[in-house]
Amino acid sequence: MTKPVPADVVSRIQAVLGAGGWSQDPDVLAPHLVEWRGRWRGETPLLVTPRTTAEVAAVVGICAAEGVAITPQGGNTGLVAGQIPHGEILLSTQKLKAVRDVDPLDDAMVLEAGVTLYEAHQQAAKVGRRFTVGVASEGSCTIGGLISTNAGGTAVLRYGMMREQVLGIEAVLPNGEIWNGLKRLRKDNTGYDLKQLLIGAEGTLGIVTAASLKLHAPLASRAVAIVGLASPADAIQLLARAKDETGGAVEAFELMSLLGFALTVRNVPGLRDPLPSEHPWYVLIEIASGEPGAAEAALERLLAKALEDGLIADAAVAQTETQEKQFWHIREGHSAGQKPEGAVWKHDVSVPVSKIPAFIERADAALEQAFPGVRIIAFGHVGDGNVHYDVLKPVGGDDDAHDAQRQAGAKIVHDITASFSGSISAEHGLGAMKTAEALTYKDPIEVAALRAIRQAIDPQRIMNPRVLF
Amino acid sequence: MTKPVPADVVSRIQAVLGAGGWSQDPDVLAPHLVEWRGRWRGETPLLVTPRTTAEVAAVVGICAAEGVAITPQGGNTGLVAGQIPHGEILLSTQKLKAVRDVDPLDDAMVLEAGVTLYEAHQQAAKVGRRFTVGVASEGSCTIGGLISTNAGGTAVLRYGMMREQVLGIEAVLPNGEIWNGLKRLRKDNTGYDLKQLLIGAEGTLGIVTAASLKLHAPLASRAVAIVGLASPADAIQLLARAKDETGGAVEAFELMSLLGFALTVRNVPGLRDPLPSEHPWYVLIEIASGEPGAAEAALERLLAKALEDGLIADAAVAQTETQEKQFWHIREGHSAGQKPEGAVWKHDVSVPVSKIPAFIERADAALEQAFPGVRIIAFGHVGDGNVHYDVLKPVGGDDDAHDAQRQAGAKIVHDITASFSGSISAEHGLGAMKTAEALTYKDPIEVAALRAIRQAIDPQRIMNPRVLF
Repeated sequence: MTKPVPADVVSRIQAVLGAGGWSQDPDVLAPHLVEWRGRWRGETPLLVTPRTTAEVAAVVGICAAEGVAITPQGGNTGLVAGQIPHGEILLSTQKLKAVRDVDPLDDAMVLEAGVTLYEAHQQAAKVGRRFTVGVASEGSCTIGGLISTNAGGTAVLRYGMMREQVLGIEAVLPNGEIWNGLKRLRKDNTGYDLKQLLIGAEGTLGIVTAASLKLHAPLASRAVAIVGLASPADAIQLLARAKDETGGAVEAFELMSLLGFALTVRNVPGLRDPLPSEHPWYVLIEIASGEPGAAEAALERLLAKALEDGLIADAAVAQTETQEKQFWHIREGHSAGQKPEGAVWKHDVSVPVSKIPAFIERADAALEQAFPGVRIIAFGHVGDGNVHYDVLKPVGGDDDAHDAQRQAGAKIVHDITASFSGSISAEHGLGAMKTAEALTYKDPIEVAALRAIRQAIDPQRIMNPRVLF
Repeated sequence: MTKPVPADVVSRIQAVLGAGGWSQDPDVLAPHLVEWRGRWRGETPLLVTPRTTAEVAAVVGICAAEGVAITPQGGNTGLVAGQIPHGEILLSTQKLKAVRDVDPLDDAMVLEAGVTLYEAHQQAAKVGRRFTVGVASEGSCTIGGLISTNAGGTAVLRYGMMREQVLGIEAVLPNGEIWNGLKRLRKDNTGYDLKQLLIGAEGTLGIVTAASLKLHAPLASRAVAIVGLASPADAIQLLARAKDETGGAVEAFELMSLLGFALTVRNVPGLRDPLPSEHPWYVLIEIASGEPGAAEAALERLLAKALEDGLIADAAVAQTETQEKQFWHIREGHSAGQKPEGAVWKHDVSVPVSKIPAFIERADAALEQAFPGVRIIAFGHVGDGNVHYDVLKPVGGDDDAHDAQRQAGAKIVHDITASFSGSISAEHGLGAMKTAEALTYKDPIEVAALRAIRQAIDPQRIMNPRVLF
């Protein structure tokens, strides 16, 4: 627990923000103090909801002068307890909602931190452009949070992480100064790229208040298929072929194991298996191209050749937009699909793409040995090497007993991940949940450098002090 | 000038490296001590040419212990005097030549710092992949230098800068420790992304010894045209249409003014104007697609519609690969083409794409007023907002007189660049040449943060001490 915030600091901040800029009402605070799955709960002496960058700076300035800690919060969709305060001032960016500019000639839009991802997609669409980051929580998650956690999602394979979508940042630094780095340049080699540090910093180096983001051109053709195949190794080969065949126009490539696929089709209302028989593994593949008809043609060529060569066992190509959505719903329904099965350990790991088959094989074997009967659901963005590796309790097993083994299971999965030079947090970040564990895997030379940087930018460690190193 | 290096430090480094690892022979040193255009010359008490990362670490370790400064050098193709020592130890990475791995399943290759860009392209091609960074000095420039200067080039529009091609870095930090950050992950959210700091740091935060780089799929179709049109504003509209028409498959979009175009066609042997009459402005456009035939089709559609609408005046589509190369040669021959015209001021600026027409108009007018008769050649990667804005002496003018006004001219161009929120060094970096000037344009809040970071990583300021802030 962070040291108590002095009462006069609270009242000074209240005075600066005025009515509507803060709250201590338990009903207002409640949704901000609990992680959305209910796994973490926190507390704060004061929720502040600044409406402008200047108000953010005023709050941070007071806190900096008094050495008072702040937890920043975006859409509160984080999964690793980075956004839940434990006694700090809670600064929500949700009222920073201005759309400052959307310019299709620059292929850039400038949005404030509290704009949701869904709204960002809409703003881009209004000018005939796309914003390419896609995550399931798009209705709640916000630009500030997406940047501060370097969000991933299903489109990383083609477009990269959130990091690669950011042209510029405006942020309030830990000393309360406003850094206006809101450039919209594609090229600017005039010193270290400061914004890269704030991206993925989980609020520890300042509070992102606005960003200049890349827009992309619309695509004229799109084709989606569900493929049944024998193994992750075959899936990796199919991915390489798909890139070759389409010149990198693979929009998504999602691997699913039979168990997750079957549970989702069974448990999520309205879904059905598009293939007539079961397969050990499935891939959802989406091709998208700027050329009319090209995506469909490339997907047909790819699948026909793969069937002929025996690389895949079966495939269904979506014939309508409704069917495309159905296919995607199977992939996106994986969390809902396994929910009725009870307690589960989730892991968000990445390894080099070529190591995915070996990783799954080794992790499956180690878990089966340590925890006989557990049911493993491997799925995820295999084109990025990102496996969401979920471990369900044995059939008929006890939820609490399974929950009690969560750390032991994670250690096995993460040790194997590390043995493949992988990451124990591919896209969710470290927050307060994974920081200690990450330290056991990170290169100490790197950690020393990261700590030195944090110390240089936030010498009092007032910004989200409980997260990262 | 940096303080003299003690003789015992020199001899200790010599002992560690052994024969073949260092030189004080003036003939060996000579090409390392002069910038390739002859604009800067330097000196060093010792050239070291380590053959392994461990040898780099040994040299840096000795220097760190004694507070002795180092200038790192890659292929010595830099344009801003970042690689020329002034009394420091000169550390060349040219002997770090190993190709550690090239893996098409991971779409990654791990190359040491001294591998040239040309060799990198060849390594990628061997496994049926592409490495997408392209700059004119590809035969000399090296991976370490490309990373340390965050190189740009003609393919940034579609693929991004060097920064976006780097998956991981191995580097010797200023304390002499080896940081092994050679991951090949597409997703890794476990703390600040340290490699981003070293990219573009111009050797001030450590010496990049190897890197893990992204590979891209080959493209099945390609089409190149030279277009004649009336204005930069029309060119920007054409770019927007090209992105729309091709779904972002624009591989290059290079603007050229009549003067530069005509001088190049006239002065470079073997070139001829592909269009029957002159136009105020030209664009070289290249479309490339993963779908066979798609690039040609999209380019034809784009140009036909643009001609019909009067957006462009004329266009020639390359019919053969030889003709494609000819078209590109006109663009790449711009420096050679203007050389016979005598003294020139060069500027490497960027502005938001939509501001290019206004930038050119305002800069042209200001220069004509301040220096009547100067001849302006604007060209460059307009899809990135990157204008290479060259100013030739007046016809019959005196070279020395023009050279003497270089700074005054730069001030005008850079002030106007800054008024459009642009960058005074889009892709060449700051080196020792532009650092002081950059300080007059950079946000002091940002500069303070960058200095704090440098101080944190290199408290003795021994790494390339004369460059950056």
